[in-house]
Amino acid sequence: MAKEEYDVIVVGGGPAGVISAVTARNYYPNKKIVLIKSVGQGVIPCGIPYMYCTLQKPEDNAMGNAPLEKNKIELVVDEVTTIDRKAKTVKLKAGKELGYDKLVLAVGSEPIVPPINGLDNKGVYPIHKEMGYLKAMKDKVVKAKSALIIGGGFIGIEFADELAGIKDLKVRLVELLPNLLMNSFDPEFGQQVEEKLKAKGVEVICGKKVQEIKGKEKVESVLLSDGSELPVDLVVLGIGALPNVKLAKDAGLDMGRGKGIWTDEYMRTSDPDIFAVGDCAGKRDFFTRKNLPVMLASTATAEARIAGANLFQLKVVRENKGTIAIYSTYVAGLVLGSAGLTEDTARKEGFEFAVGTAEAPDKHPASIPGANKVKVKLIFSRQSGILLGGQVSGGMSAGEMINIIGLALQQRVSATELETLQMATQPHLTAPPTMYPLVVAAQNVINKL
Amino acid sequence: MAKEEYDVIVVGGGPAGVISAVTARNYYPNKKIVLIKSVGQGVIPCGIPYMYCTLQKPEDNAMGNAPLEKNKIELVVDEVTTIDRKAKTVKLKAGKELGYDKLVLAVGSEPIVPPINGLDNKGVYPIHKEMGYLKAMKDKVVKAKSALIIGGGFIGIEFADELAGIKDLKVRLVELLPNLLMNSFDPEFGQQVEEKLKAKGVEVICGKKVQEIKGKEKVESVLLSDGSELPVDLVVLGIGALPNVKLAKDAGLDMGRGKGIWTDEYMRTSDPDIFAVGDCAGKRDFFTRKNLPVMLASTATAEARIAGANLFQLKVVRENKGTIAIYSTYVAGLVLGSAGLTEDTARKEGFEFAVGTAEAPDKHPASIPGANKVKVKLIFSRQSGILLGGQVSGGMSAGEMINIIGLALQQRVSATELETLQMATQPHLTAPPTMYPLVVAAQNVINKL
Repeated sequence: MAKEEYDVIVVGGGPAGVISAVTARNYYPNKKIVLIKSVGQGVIPCGIPYMYCTLQKPEDNAMGNAPLEKNKIELVVDEVTTIDRKAKTVKLKAGKELGYDKLVLAVGSEPIVPPINGLDNKGVYPIHKEMGYLKAMKDKVVKAKSALIIGGGFIGIEFADELAGIKDLKVRLVELLPNLLMNSFDPEFGQQVEEKLKAKGVEVICGKKVQEIKGKEKVESVLLSDGSELPVDLVVLGIGALPNVKLAKDAGLDMGRGKGIWTDEYMRTSDPDIFAVGDCAGKRDFFTRKNLPVMLASTATAEARIAGANLFQLKVVRENKGTIAIYSTYVAGLVLGSAGLTEDTARKEGFEFAVGTAEAPDKHPASIPGANKVKVKLIFSRQSGILLGGQVSGGMSAGEMINIIGLALQQRVSATELETLQMATQPHLTAPPTMYPLVVAAQNVINKL
Repeated sequence: MAKEEYDVIVVGGGPAGVISAVTARNYYPNKKIVLIKSVGQGVIPCGIPYMYCTLQKPEDNAMGNAPLEKNKIELVVDEVTTIDRKAKTVKLKAGKELGYDKLVLAVGSEPIVPPINGLDNKGVYPIHKEMGYLKAMKDKVVKAKSALIIGGGFIGIEFADELAGIKDLKVRLVELLPNLLMNSFDPEFGQQVEEKLKAKGVEVICGKKVQEIKGKEKVESVLLSDGSELPVDLVVLGIGALPNVKLAKDAGLDMGRGKGIWTDEYMRTSDPDIFAVGDCAGKRDFFTRKNLPVMLASTATAEARIAGANLFQLKVVRENKGTIAIYSTYVAGLVLGSAGLTEDTARKEGFEFAVGTAEAPDKHPASIPGANKVKVKLIFSRQSGILLGGQVSGGMSAGEMINIIGLALQQRVSATELETLQMATQPHLTAPPTMYPLVVAAQNVINKL
């Protein structure tokens, strides 16, 4: 059977795959590029929770093919079953073989299915990124009387916030750890989310484990570690995901020390003609070089831009940066952002640090209508004065404030530099210049360094 | 007459003065500090336009004394008439003399009064930062039938936006240059503001000069350079300000090459015991070291933090940064920000540059309620790839996006670094990671470098 030859094959139709292909086109205008995706109708991953109330219809969250068409990238909907590294070909489920010069694996992740009895009951929903599945799930959720979400990370809290808007649906959220969002925020921030969810009628249960999901034909109740049993008719699994590495493992690529595919700083796997980006690729922490289980569309696209540019030549020097955990979320009008290390992780990793905090209105004077309180916490290395991490909560503007902190981390900015930062302030848009919280938090820490 | 001795005297009660005093207290807990201000009841400068509609009452924009009390800073309401540098004393209008070890001049600016006939008519209002004056002005404005604002910079457009909310008041704005905001934005941004103001009923007249203000006892009409005459009963002067340097000049301090008081990088004047900060102090441009006529509360507070820390010892090393112009504004729901050089100023200064642009929704998918379009323009040095300036327009989040650009400028970030930036994205808060406009604008410019 004649095989078709490509300069670049990208496997995966999520943000990592699409941006790899688009960036490759931008840097290498004459190459023949194809993107292979297994899911005919994908969705925008971060938008999944919002397919219930915020968006008018699930289709509004569809991942379109316009960027591929616009950039003359061929599209094949099929599953890649094997990679032949010697022949430099991939085999598709339908039988066809395609040849590559450079291959990009952007095959994503699979939701974690925890070791809980009864997960095979009808009415238990892991989050798969496929339109048909998610629409069917929505149909069930809106008809349910009571839903229980397992996991108090980003997916869990955003689902809880959104499902709380469905009429006559009782929403519960169970988190094993003592606070919400503990992997990315210190407790005082997670507690703000808990208050917001409770005010919206969500029953938040922290510090307890789901022991068993009970039911005959379908979910009927959930048994918690304290022996209590909650009647529910639907369970959402929001406890994270694991890198999808089967294809890479079968092809003999290195896995490194973590759970994802090993790559160098330019997203090249142990085979220099194969790149891996996004959730399927391993991450190394910016500060420690340890493996970092971060799976974010924004990280994925940053990696995809590096891979796409560097496919045939190393054009974009990455300066050995590693990955920073950088997140934002929105719950019932409250915005939270976190970047870099939390106080908790800094302590666990053995950093000597000092913490600066600040609070200010996000408009000024604070009597301007719509003003919210913004809280900032910055963590600095005590000796070197370098920013290690930051957290922020507030109104809508906090969503971009965390990106100021993110840039400051990536530039290894010091407390002194932040303390004398020149920034734009405006009554409708920011805290007053006298109280700009990133500056004041830096100033607050200076005496402690 | 016995003179009272202080370690630190701060002259001026605006943001520059207050932050100088508060920072001095933070760094030097045991010093005796006094702040002298000539205006009993000051106002928050940036909030002045919002004393008409947005705030419930003018008093909501009062500049309180709480930060001074909290930091044990004495307060004297009086005017400093002379400085005796030899004796190290200042003389007050009421006759008293105060001795200083270190003196901080934070005496601000005076509104520019342009050479137009008829400015002495009743009903012509420059913007003075004093509560009594501004309240009296408001009383007149709300009773007027028609107001004309001279000047299409920040003050002018914010006043126009706010006055347009007053019932039965016809609002006109006259700008000499062909577009609004031309000192800080390229035309395509100023034009967006013009559209917004027009939609709110403001008559915007660009490219024309006010020749004469006519009237007998009070303003009756305004004659423009094209010969047209507009009936108005109130004129607001919003054409900027000049540094207040009389006190410093009389004391023999150097004025340097610009209009403000000369200072070194640590805000020390030519007399090492006298510092100058804020509007009264000269600024040097971050990129060219030329004098820069920037007068902003945010710049003032950044300078005040440097002065306050460095009064007795140079504690905070400034790294010879100079001033970046960094602004944001809000007009009828549209947010604009500018930092560093515009395309226009870069060209005038002789930089070789390339421009990258991007457009994206500020939520994702764009069908999330409340999504706005955000536009970004970045200007990079062609050869060195370093960011020279950026402009952004959009919804509320643009107010902090400009501060990401501002930090990137101050860190001399390159297009490559921005192209591979790791950022937080979230459906309610930001553009999608695939289209994050700061990254896409950097990517857009890469091929042009």
